[in-house]
Amino acid sequence: MSGTGKTKQDSATLLLLAAVGLALITILTVWKLKQLKYRLINETGGAMFFGMLLGLTVRCMLFGWGEQMDDMETVCICGGPNNTPHSVTVNNTSNFHRIRHVGKVSQRCPSVSTPHTETFDPEVLFNLFLPPIIFHGAYTLNQKRFILNLGSVFTFAFLGTIINCIIVGACVYGFTRLMVLLGRAADGDFFLTDCLLFGAMVSATDPVAVLGLLSELRVDLDLHTLLFGESVLNDAGAIVLTHAITTYSQMGAEPNFDPPAFLLSVGYFLGVLAGSFLLGFTFTVTTALLTKFTRLRENPLLETSVFFLLSWSSFLAAKASGLSGIVAVLFCGLSQARYTIHNLSSEGRCRTKQLFEVLNFLGEIFIFSYMGYVLLMFPHHVFKALFITGAFLSIFISRACSIYPLSFLLNLGRTTKIPRTFQHFMMFAGFRGAVAFSLVRRDTSTEVGRTIFSTTLLLVGFTTWVLGTAADPMLRRLNIRVGVEADDDTEDLSVEVATGGPDTTRGLWHRLDYKFLKPVLTHCGPPLADSLPQWCGLFARLFSSPRVQEDDEQLCETEPDDSAFDLEKTEDRLGSVGGDSGSAHQEDLLEGDLGLGTAPAPAPTREA
Amino acid sequence: MSGTGKTKQDSATLLLLAAVGLALITILTVWKLKQLKYRLINETGGAMFFGMLLGLTVRCMLFGWGEQMDDMETVCICGGPNNTPHSVTVNNTSNFHRIRHVGKVSQRCPSVSTPHTETFDPEVLFNLFLPPIIFHGAYTLNQKRFILNLGSVFTFAFLGTIINCIIVGACVYGFTRLMVLLGRAADGDFFLTDCLLFGAMVSATDPVAVLGLLSELRVDLDLHTLLFGESVLNDAGAIVLTHAITTYSQMGAEPNFDPPAFLLSVGYFLGVLAGSFLLGFTFTVTTALLTKFTRLRENPLLETSVFFLLSWSSFLAAKASGLSGIVAVLFCGLSQARYTIHNLSSEGRCRTKQLFEVLNFLGEIFIFSYMGYVLLMFPHHVFKALFITGAFLSIFISRACSIYPLSFLLNLGRTTKIPRTFQHFMMFAGFRGAVAFSLVRRDTSTEVGRTIFSTTLLLVGFTTWVLGTAADPMLRRLNIRVGVEADDDTEDLSVEVATGGPDTTRGLWHRLDYKFLKPVLTHCGPPLADSLPQWCGLFARLFSSPRVQEDDEQLCETEPDDSAFDLEKTEDRLGSVGGDSGSAHQEDLLEGDLGLGTAPAPAPTREA
Repeated sequence: MSGTGKTKQDSATLLLLAAVGLALITILTVWKLKQLKYRLINETGGAMFFGMLLGLTVRCMLFGWGEQMDDMETVCICGGPNNTPHSVTVNNTSNFHRIRHVGKVSQRCPSVSTPHTETFDPEVLFNLFLPPIIFHGAYTLNQKRFILNLGSVFTFAFLGTIINCIIVGACVYGFTRLMVLLGRAADGDFFLTDCLLFGAMVSATDPVAVLGLLSELRVDLDLHTLLFGESVLNDAGAIVLTHAITTYSQMGAEPNFDPPAFLLSVGYFLGVLAGSFLLGFTFTVTTALLTKFTRLRENPLLETSVFFLLSWSSFLAAKASGLSGIVAVLFCGLSQARYTIHNLSSEGRCRTKQLFEVLNFLGEIFIFSYMGYVLLMFPHHVFKALFITGAFLSIFISRACSIYPLSFLLNLGRTTKIPRTFQHFMMFAGFRGAVAFSLVRRDTSTEVGRTIFSTTLLLVGFTTWVLGTAADPMLRRLNIRVGVEADDDTEDLSVEVATGGPDTTRGLWHRLDYKFLKPVLTHCGPPLADSLPQWCGLFARLFSSPRVQEDDEQLCETEPDDSAFDLEKTEDRLGSVGGDSGSAHQEDLLEGDLGLGTAPAPAPTREA
Repeated sequence: MSGTGKTKQDSATLLLLAAVGLALITILTVWKLKQLKYRLINETGGAMFFGMLLGLTVRCMLFGWGEQMDDMETVCICGGPNNTPHSVTVNNTSNFHRIRHVGKVSQRCPSVSTPHTETFDPEVLFNLFLPPIIFHGAYTLNQKRFILNLGSVFTFAFLGTIINCIIVGACVYGFTRLMVLLGRAADGDFFLTDCLLFGAMVSATDPVAVLGLLSELRVDLDLHTLLFGESVLNDAGAIVLTHAITTYSQMGAEPNFDPPAFLLSVGYFLGVLAGSFLLGFTFTVTTALLTKFTRLRENPLLETSVFFLLSWSSFLAAKASGLSGIVAVLFCGLSQARYTIHNLSSEGRCRTKQLFEVLNFLGEIFIFSYMGYVLLMFPHHVFKALFITGAFLSIFISRACSIYPLSFLLNLGRTTKIPRTFQHFMMFAGFRGAVAFSLVRRDTSTEVGRTIFSTTLLLVGFTTWVLGTAADPMLRRLNIRVGVEADDDTEDLSVEVATGGPDTTRGLWHRLDYKFLKPVLTHCGPPLADSLPQWCGLFARLFSSPRVQEDDEQLCETEPDDSAFDLEKTEDRLGSVGGDSGSAHQEDLLEGDLGLGTAPAPAPTREA
């Protein structure tokens, strides 16, 4: 056994052990604190705190390591060949050391991953745990609420992110000019595109942090949907904006506005969004057809494994094809919960939900621990007081400038207004987290990159601890309902369904969802032969399994026992009792509005 | 964003996607084949096959890459400083390339991990998936059967491994001498210690492969216990033997027998075994006390997470402290199933079992896919026909020389004889797999190392496919019961308990388990105050939770609904009804023998 292999293996084991230990300490401490009624600390904050403690300890143990490494970097410089060598051999006393090429760097500074690359690539963390976190959020989301609020969610997520990005960029750029005036920075240090890039990267609120808080406090379901929907979708926005700005700044280095490059960026933005959506949906279609037309449900273990692997693949496939993995897995989760779940056995439903729940819980803790660890362990932080001040100020200003005006505009159209208290809380709940971190950590080779990296970590820490801790008192102060159970809402909606309203637009969504997608992908809904035109006969025969006709009603009534799916149950039961038109009526009522107005929607739970 | 980061990230994503894709294809193909009644192929064989296909594809795409890399290795040789540099910088045209030190190598050949290290460290695979696989095996093992057969299992696992190691070593050494005679190898190529090392590494049968087959076929429970117990424990034996031989050969390079070094190796072997056992048990004690004395059971998600993390830690902690992770997690699993499970909520029990089940299933597939992939992808295989012939012959000879004589000796003492048919099947079921692979892959820097590596991979492939496929027909041929449900056995045992037998040794085990460990670690068993001496009053008060007295019987009767734990239920119920002496009587009856004889045990299910 070679010594190196052994050492490497040992350090990998130690690292894993440290991570598991941190997670255990976090879980137990936070749980104990909550039992003692200190409800202010949540898991994400706790995880980050203990991560920082570990980072500090490791740093103290390796004191001076950073400097040492800098010295070593220039030890052996020799003229290489024209092609990049994969490995070089350095003659060191009696042994030969094999050395591996890890990539080009600008000579200024080693990258963030330097202290860990030997044993750990943080990308693994994000590839492993981000998909289950987002998927779990989408999979357990109250579907009706989400569809009711879809328009508003999209507005906040995309318009909001763009507003945030521009305001943060402009504000921080102002502060960097101030730095130049005060002699704290050279003139060419920060370009406008750098500041906009920072704006794009920190403009998104974080679904991990937001979900952690929301599921903890169980706030009003509309507020939950708005905040979670926004945080998931604006990640996509931020990722795409970041890429678009990078592309833009690479194409035209001059700071002047360049319309073709801008249009290209916008096109790219829309393309990535649509592509990711389609990809996520493709994986749902695959899973749904596989579970519908095979007898996989007879073996819940296989069913769960296939469901889990296919859902996870949506993230990986999107990333591999240059799309947004987060958006893909989000839509995959939403559509799996709408269609595939009907094809699963009841044990399969329970298993998938519990599996994602555990992965989501542990993933949150691991990711935040790691952020805390890096905050104190990274040896090349650049803290610039003015830049940090600008960043902190700008994220509040920009959030105010996006939430209040957009809410005002949306309320003009919405039947269910967004109450003023909700707006205050949304303004307040601008947590930054894992996604911002994963964006900024990619480039820490330049001083600008490191300034952005360090400032973002501070922002994450501040929003997680200060805002996260203040959220509970804030909700009480604003008099917003907390401790809402998902099924509190079921009755409200069924009553609304029963009392009904005028039959409005028989929209595209209804036709697509109820008449086409449900019968094709599940055993529920009207027979395909009825809902499709005559000439689609072959298609209808192909996708109607024999079971559809036989046990349609029975299957649709044995719905998941989980409260999140109670709405579905109500809907399906009504659908199978009242037939096509009754169900259509109800679907339109619920889904015609999309939170943008026009259709009569349920009365607001509370007005400001 | 730096280009390198992006590329690295992309390749990590692609790798994960490939792994997930392979797993999906394997699951679906094997499941479909089984539906079509081709029951011969199992998941491990399928996974290895598809892994090989991927390896072949990648190899074809990167054709010639291996040679190219060899050339590059000597491109840049320059005199380094006395201390090992962490990174060196090579001036290559206009860019500087940062190059990272990955470890000493003997100049002969790059290590096995070279093609993957950029994105993937196989150690991660083993750290992530081996613990859940072993834990799941131990956690769901029929405890009574295991204890009944403990003596035999230990004999096969440890004496068997030593016999295997010596015979394989000697046999292969004979073949290497033949190679020297025939001019196929130089005189100094293979030492006896090399051959013994090979013997140690391939002497262990693999729990992953064995479990895959056993749970698939559901063979007779005694045979299951013997095979699984042996395969898990002999891994430990193999790991420790490997280390001992390495230490021995490093201490005295001369091939003569060196008694002090040998004694040291034996001491090391026993020390590691005892240490790992204790460490695994420590983690169980921690989990049991935590779940007993806190109200963690009110939150099944936290309960499952803590249980999962602590069980996993036992593996990591053992590895980090130089002990055997596999042995630690094995004992942790066994003792968690005996004690901690009584403290979990019923949802927690179900969740933990299902979580480990999924991880076990996916882990098996990932590990075998990876082995298949490496078999075709590794560019530096050394296949020596004579060595391979020797290896194949010797594993059969050695297995015959350990199974039959040891069974004969054990049958002299055992009341439940090991039937001749079982012996034939045990002889046959000598699968090699993940653990052998993880041992041999550590050193592939020398030609001997690579010969061993390639030969072991062939052995794994052969035993997985040929023996794995032939197992089902073999069982039918030998007329061994298959398709046994775990609860088939419950009745038999309760009948045996009811009919009873003479009250033999009130052994240490009974006193420790029933009178001490159960009351301390769970809410079951007799009150501590009764079973402990007077002077332990403080201790008894400290560890008797108030609930013990109140709802002892009730808790112990709401046992896990899983069939594997039915035996526990019977025992506890009898214990709480018949009081201390009745239960003691029954425990002695069941556990006095340990498969080595003396106590009257249940009648054999079948004699050869």
